[in-house]
Amino acid sequence: VQLAVVSGSLEPRVDCRRLFVFAGDHGVVEEGVSAFPARVTVQMVENFLAGGAAINLFCRHYGIELAVVDIGVAGDFPDHPLLRRLKVARGTANFVLGPAMTRAEALAGIANGARAFLDAQVDGPCQLVGMGEMGIGNTTSATAIIAAVSGRPVAELVGRGTGVDDAGLRRKREVIERALALHRPPPGDSLALLSCLGGHELAGICGAVLAAASCRCPVVLDGIISTAAGLLAALLCPAVKEYLIAGHRSVERGQETALALLGLEPILDLDLRLGEGTGAAITMNLADLACRMMREMASFAEAGVDGSLPGEG
Amino acid sequence: VQLAVVSGSLEPRVDCRRLFVFAGDHGVVEEGVSAFPARVTVQMVENFLAGGAAINLFCRHYGIELAVVDIGVAGDFPDHPLLRRLKVARGTANFVLGPAMTRAEALAGIANGARAFLDAQVDGPCQLVGMGEMGIGNTTSATAIIAAVSGRPVAELVGRGTGVDDAGLRRKREVIERALALHRPPPGDSLALLSCLGGHELAGICGAVLAAASCRCPVVLDGIISTAAGLLAALLCPAVKEYLIAGHRSVERGQETALALLGLEPILDLDLRLGEGTGAAITMNLADLACRMMREMASFAEAGVDGSLPGEG
Repeated sequence: VQLAVVSGSLEPRVDCRRLFVFAGDHGVVEEGVSAFPARVTVQMVENFLAGGAAINLFCRHYGIELAVVDIGVAGDFPDHPLLRRLKVARGTANFVLGPAMTRAEALAGIANGARAFLDAQVDGPCQLVGMGEMGIGNTTSATAIIAAVSGRPVAELVGRGTGVDDAGLRRKREVIERALALHRPPPGDSLALLSCLGGHELAGICGAVLAAASCRCPVVLDGIISTAAGLLAALLCPAVKEYLIAGHRSVERGQETALALLGLEPILDLDLRLGEGTGAAITMNLADLACRMMREMASFAEAGVDGSLPGEG
Repeated sequence: VQLAVVSGSLEPRVDCRRLFVFAGDHGVVEEGVSAFPARVTVQMVENFLAGGAAINLFCRHYGIELAVVDIGVAGDFPDHPLLRRLKVARGTANFVLGPAMTRAEALAGIANGARAFLDAQVDGPCQLVGMGEMGIGNTTSATAIIAAVSGRPVAELVGRGTGVDDAGLRRKREVIERALALHRPPPGDSLALLSCLGGHELAGICGAVLAAASCRCPVVLDGIISTAAGLLAALLCPAVKEYLIAGHRSVERGQETALALLGLEPILDLDLRLGEGTGAAITMNLADLACRMMREMASFAEAGVDGSLPGEG
């Protein structure tokens, strides 16, 4: 129903499906908030470009065009057909010590995210877009933003990310609490939230969501990062909410609060904590299936079946 | 993991996927337990053969071979490439008045269900099979069987099927309670349960499950009907349980109890009450995706990514 409403058609199509993986680094990783070292962001981008990551095969499996956007990785990559170079900075600053980025960088990230989506439109208008991400430390950034927007206690929102242990989880909570006390970001100001608490990839997704909605293209969110970025986009422009689809329920706890603020119910609950846009990719296929149901199923009248569905009168 | 264990391979494949829709009629429909008249079973089989039903497009969408098995429909069909003729009887008898079928018919249904699976093996060994059904009145039969096996109160198990109203729901509960009081079927005897409470399509699915497991082929169940039939198969041969995958959580309440008896957790919860094997078809695709993850994802070592997953040491 949502796809039909957004496309203005009773026979919606999502034949052109794209998924963007926005990658960025996070200065806050030096506080010991992740189970993995920061250089894994670079290594995983290399893995995406080599075609070996989960999202590569998910996109192959579902016929989704994949693009990897370097919007803020602290490393360099050779030219590659999958890679978009839209780097705003080589990672964020450690947001416990000061702002993650300047307000100008936050705006540039949003603009570059929008550009990633809009440039691809030249190859054909996208009918469904998925948002993925890669960035060691980015659940800390996303959780901080969700805590700032919702006002809920950090302890109720913080999760294990890629699998931090109990001591790491405690550090993560304390880091976010210190950052919120330091910055006291206004909960409705997306640019302030981004510059205080960062995430170049969050800025990029925020911009891509705004661009997609401006093209009437529905957006499938993935885990806590893209849901937090969707929340930032909705704060800038509440009308984007009608274009958002929650791809899956993440095991990362803070996502639930962001979903509630957006009024979204996830389609899937598969105990995923993989990121990269993998949950979004599966739901993009279900959206394609739903469109085919609208187009290809015979009605009871067409099929000569007696009776009517409840509510059809 | 389950697919790897069942296939005995760390690189499992489910390239050959088949889905069987077992169709049968139910004498108990004359008690007013369904929102639809009994002739809709015939009409929906005709719709399957014409390619216009949901399961047709689900199978097209996911590259699943579809077969429709007339195991007990009260009607006749012309020859058709999708149709298997394995009719045991023209519907069951009304099980409130007497047995739904003879014990010989129950056994014939199981044998014919096994034959549907095994005959298709000639075209290539099936690596994943889904179980669908069509039969106006069959949630009444399946719920009665689940109530008999579990001993739980019918009121806690009965649901609206294709959308019966409050009066119909009350009739359905009373019909099942009367039937259980009349037959008092032994809760562990699948042949007695089938003959008392019926469902030629339940017998057929039961047989197909047994045949598939005997070929080490994993089975994806769908809603309450196939889950009840899977339960009957597990009562006959508990070892089949390791081959069973619960495709989705149905909105039909009684399914939960059957799943608990089988020790299964559904993969999906999409508020479906469509039947036909549609929930199974979606999960069959996720099983294919899971196999591709085992085969195509680079390991961290292969991709040159630092660190190890929690638990990898």
